[in-house]
Parts: sequence; C-alpha cells; structure tokens
Amino acid sequence: MTQFTQTPDLAWLHVPVAQVDTNARAAAEARQAQLTKPPGSLGRLEQVAVDFAGWQGRSVPAIDRIGLAVFAADHGVAAQGVSAFPQSVTAQMVANFAAGGAAVAVLARRAGANMTVVNLGTVSATAHVPGVINHDLAAGTADFTEAPAMSQATLAKALAAGAHHVAPNLSLFVGGEMGIANTTSAAAVYAALAGREAATVVGRGTGVNDTGLSAKQTAVERGLTRHAPAWAGQDQANGTQTILRCLGGLEIAALTGAYIAAAQRSVPVVVDGFIASVAALAAVRINPGVADWLVYGHRSAEAGHAQVLADLNAHPLLDLDMRLGEGSGAMMAVPVIQNALALHAEMATFAEAGFA
Amino acid sequence: MTQFTQTPDLAWLHVPVAQVDTNARAAAEARQAQLTKPPGSLGRLEQVAVDFAGWQGRSVPAIDRIGLAVFAADHGVAAQGVSAFPQSVTAQMVANFAAGGAAVAVLARRAGANMTVVNLGTVSATAHVPGVINHDLAAGTADFTEAPAMSQATLAKALAAGAHHVAPNLSLFVGGEMGIANTTSAAAVYAALAGREAATVVGRGTGVNDTGLSAKQTAVERGLTRHAPAWAGQDQANGTQTILRCLGGLEIAALTGAYIAAAQRSVPVVVDGFIASVAALAAVRINPGVADWLVYGHRSAEAGHAQVLADLNAHPLLDLDMRLGEGSGAMMAVPVIQNALALHAEMATFAEAGFA
Repeated sequence: MTQFTQTPDLAWLHVPVAQVDTNARAAAEARQAQLTKPPGSLGRLEQVAVDFAGWQGRSVPAIDRIGLAVFAADHGVAAQGVSAFPQSVTAQMVANFAAGGAAVAVLARRAGANMTVVNLGTVSATAHVPGVINHDLAAGTADFTEAPAMSQATLAKALAAGAHHVAPNLSLFVGGEMGIANTTSAAAVYAALAGREAATVVGRGTGVNDTGLSAKQTAVERGLTRHAPAWAGQDQANGTQTILRCLGGLEIAALTGAYIAAAQRSVPVVVDGFIASVAALAAVRINPGVADWLVYGHRSAEAGHAQVLADLNAHPLLDLDMRLGEGSGAMMAVPVIQNALALHAEMATFAEAGFA
Repeated sequence: MTQFTQTPDLAWLHVPVAQVDTNARAAAEARQAQLTKPPGSLGRLEQVAVDFAGWQGRSVPAIDRIGLAVFAADHGVAAQGVSAFPQSVTAQMVANFAAGGAAVAVLARRAGANMTVVNLGTVSATAHVPGVINHDLAAGTADFTEAPAMSQATLAKALAAGAHHVAPNLSLFVGGEMGIANTTSAAAVYAALAGREAATVVGRGTGVNDTGLSAKQTAVERGLTRHAPAWAGQDQANGTQTILRCLGGLEIAALTGAYIAAAQRSVPVVVDGFIASVAALAAVRINPGVADWLVYGHRSAEAGHAQVLADLNAHPLLDLDMRLGEGSGAMMAVPVIQNALALHAEMATFAEAGFA
C-alpha cells in the first residue's frame, strides 16, 4: 500500500506546464505537405501528428509507452438513490480491472498500454486483491447533500495521488475512473464550475430509470445549494479546489491532479468521457496551460458531455455512442492516434515516391 | 498479368447473397448482456460484435484474415479539367501502393491486412511495377461527356475482376480505389442512380479550385444529359449496370462487383468513403441483399458522401474529416472493429467476475 500520510502542499498545482515545441510542430506540418496525398486529405489525423510532434519535440513523433491509470473510489451521495448499482460494485469492478476482465483492461492489452489500478478509497476494501494499488484515503466520500465530500487534507492527497501515477517518460497518459454514483458527483462539480442548472447536466449514467434521474437532479441541486457559499468570492483556481472538495470524488480529484502533472511532465493526455472531461475542466481552471496537453478521445452518450466539451473547445476523435467510463473511450482512440503517427512516419514523400 | 479475355456472363450478379445467422446474432446479444458493463454502454461496439457474429455464424466472432484490394483506373473525363492532378498520377500512385508508401499501405501493415494492388487500366502502364496485378481492361475509360465510358464487355470484365479479388475465406474485405477524376465519375453515377442534381453531388475531390469545381458540375451535367436515355425505362438492376457502363470507372465497377461477390461468399465488407459508397449503392441496386453484409468505415469530408450514406441508411463508425480514398477511411475503422470483437470475446461475464 502506498500511503499519502503527509498532507501535500498544493503549490505544485500552479507550476507552469511544459512548453510545446513550435519548431517541431512547424517541421511536422512541412512534412505533412510532402507526403503522397492531397493536402489536408487525412483530416484530423494530420493534426494529431502535428500535435504529437509539438509535444515530443521532434518532427516525426512515435508512441512508445502508453500509461493508463484507472482511479476508483466510492461516493457518499450513492445513499441518495442516484445509481442503478449498489456501492459494492465499485470494489468488485476494481478486482475485475486487476484481473483483466473489464473493458478497459481488454483495450489496454490490445493497445500495449501499461495499466495501473488505483483504489483511492472504497466502502469495500480491496487490500487482498492482487494487482491493485490501495491508497485508502477514505472509505469513500461523504454524502455531499449533507456535508463536504472530503476534507482539504484528503483533497490534497487525492490530487497528489493522481500526479503520482503519471510517469514522466510516457508517450501518452490515459486516466480512467470507476465509482458508483460518480456521474452524480461529476455533474455537481461541472454545474458548479460552469454555472449550469442541475437539470441540464445530469444524465442517466450507467442507466438509471426516471426515479433515479430525478434523485440525481435533486442531489445535485441540494449539493449546490448547500456548498455554493464555500466558493463564493474565491478566485478561479481556489474556487475550483473548493468545488472539488465539497462535491467531488476522490477519483475525480485524482484525474485532475494527474492531468496537471502530465502537462507539467510533457506527457500528452487522452481524455475519456464525461467524468474525465469534468476533471480536465477542473485542471484547466486551476492551471490553464494544461489545455495545451489534452486530446479528447471520444464523445460520450452521457447527457452532460456535449456541454463540457463545448466549454473546453474540445473536438473528440471518436463518437461511438459509448458511455462506460473506465477510460474505455480514450483507449478506443489510441489506435487512431497510433495510425496517425504511423502515417506521418511511414508514408512516402512525393520525392521518395519519384513524383515529378 | 491476369487477363479477362472472355466476356463474363453477368448472371452471377443476381445469385442471392449468403444468409446472416440470426441464431448466432441472438447468442451474441445474450453474451453482451452478461459482460461486466451496464447494458448498452459500449454503444456502437456492441452492434459491431453482434453483426460479426451473424456474419461468421458463431456467438464469439474473430478477425483472422483481412483482405484489402485497391482498384486503380484512369478516367477519360479528366480531359474536362476536373482534377487538380494530371492523369499520370494514377499510375504513379499504383506504384506507391505496391511500394508500401501510400497511406492505405501503411494502414494495411498496421492492421495485418493482405493488400492486393489491382490496375484495371491506366493511361500510363504499370506492367513493369513489382507487386501490381495488371488487368489492362482499357487505357482508362472514354470521356463520358462524349461517349459511354466503357463497352458492355468491359463493364462485365470490370465487375468480374472485382469479384475475382475477394477470397471466400476472409474475415472482412476492404475495397480501395485510385483514379484521377474518379470523384467526377462517382458523382455522375450517384446523380444518375439517385436522381440528384449535379450541383448537389459534386465536391472538391482531391482539392480542385472553383474553376475545377465548376468544370466537374458541367461534366456531370453533360454526362447525365447525354446518357440518360440509355437507362430510361430499364429496371433497377439493368439500369444500374447501364449507368455504370455510361458514367462509371473501371475501379468503381470493380468495387461494385467485389461487394456483390463478398456478400455471396459470406465476407462482410467495410465500405470506405464517397466513391466506395457509390459503388455500394450500385451493388445494392443490382442485388439488394448485399446491404446485409456492409459496414461503413467513415464519413468522408467529400461533399456528396452524406447524401449517399443517407440513401443507404448507413451510419459510419468514424468521422475524421478524411477525404483521401484508397480505402484509407475503411482501414482506419478496422482497429475499431478489432477492439469491438476483442471486448466481446475477452471481457469477463458477471458470473466469471464473481458478481453476486
């Protein structure tokens, strides 16, 4: 077990992100113009290659090491009847990730990604499960309709735990999440960050019925009403941390910390669906430069995702009507990225192919 | 050189397609419901797995052999100034496919596909190029603004050549195309098949300027005016063949023949962009059962594609703003399909994962 026994200082959140190499981007753009195809005809794939050139500081980038961390945690707001599944499912799914039977584990194997399964705090312990890293920050969050979801010290530890699992030598990082009731938490965080009404950001998550959907809306409204005074008047960075502390989940905070650390360590991030995008928005609100290091894997079918994507000016690579989470949509985009970089590296130029 | 010296009989076009196995589909749907995820949460990927189950006649399908045939040919209508590139580029690109430097060749390597490069008839010969199968049906088509694009005998040979390159033991087939001016030919075929105005189906292809776009519209209009009497009053299947003969390209006819043969041989097809989709529409008009064996790889940025897709009730897997042709968009969808089948085969069921 890796413990975060000391409360980390949060100053690291504001360390500037790494610089994108604009010369390498320009060289990659020049190379694209020489490849044996009409200019622009590879569409989004050309931009992906140029983006990775800028991130890797070389005109012909390559994907060598793919890091995937799946962050799991439980949510006190589950007591409000907001999920179709009991809270015990979180720990069961943690075991399923580690055993390789979950969707994201299958996709990680196919992509050659190194998957880390991180339990930040669940109601049912997974200390006995091989292959799980247990941080045990709390036995899940508190029910945010009744109290702040976590303490300031726990928030700091969750942010640091996320950062801890981003190795600095990765070609790209994917963060996944699992936690019964976490679309409710993410919807509350998003509504607070973006000033939205609960009804417009709450969706069916894993598939709640109308009663569950109504319970989610009520829970988000109660959480916003209860805690809004806590971030009123705070600046953007501090207000975002307060919102995460009052409404967030341990895994959402971990994703936020991971994204900030990735951008600081020159590691591009493939963002997954609704929950991950809310964490990305939090990361960008805390440290705006993070936006330069994000690519969006897919457009989720979860109701609120389209709005979050619009707020982030994000245009995901895929739209496959997925709504699973775990990082699965981001992992589906990895072969698209791998193909984009292979095309950039391996296509003949007009000169190489002997064109006049 | 493989010659089609005898004019093939066209009766084969009407042989019924293979039956989809509805029991295997039902078994795959039942398996999807048992996998460790909320029902429906893998979106389009679930349907892909079920479709392949029906095509392969087993509840857990797998992709073993991927066949890719890239069909190339020249077009007499290039004389009307409809392309940004000279006709010699067709043969140069054929050599680039065979040498492995073209986009689709890179994607074929990454997907483990077996690529066949087929020259049906170009202005510049490729007899000397290693790795090219030369059928030499004609030195390109005639300019359809002045004469029928090809004879009935040549049409029959082109359809048969396409069928010839679909091996019956493939897990899936992708057809690509290359031919300077072939978006003009495809637009004319589509306008005739679907009763559309030239202006609504003509796009910029490889990237013509406004003058070229205007020339494309004029060429399509002249072709439709000249040849419409030839198919007036014919039934759907015969009219489609007449349209292909008068306005088509050798490679478009080959794709049509390939798709029909694939469906007859129990080989599912991943359809590429605008030109391939027009060939798919022609195939379905000739033999409606073909529609049951098609999956659409991507939505092209070429202007007419959205209409063709709507006519086919097609919902492509990807939308990456590509407009290259060659089969490249379909090959980008192959990893999506491979992942969909891996998830279906390798995810744990709730029982296997020990869920209550």
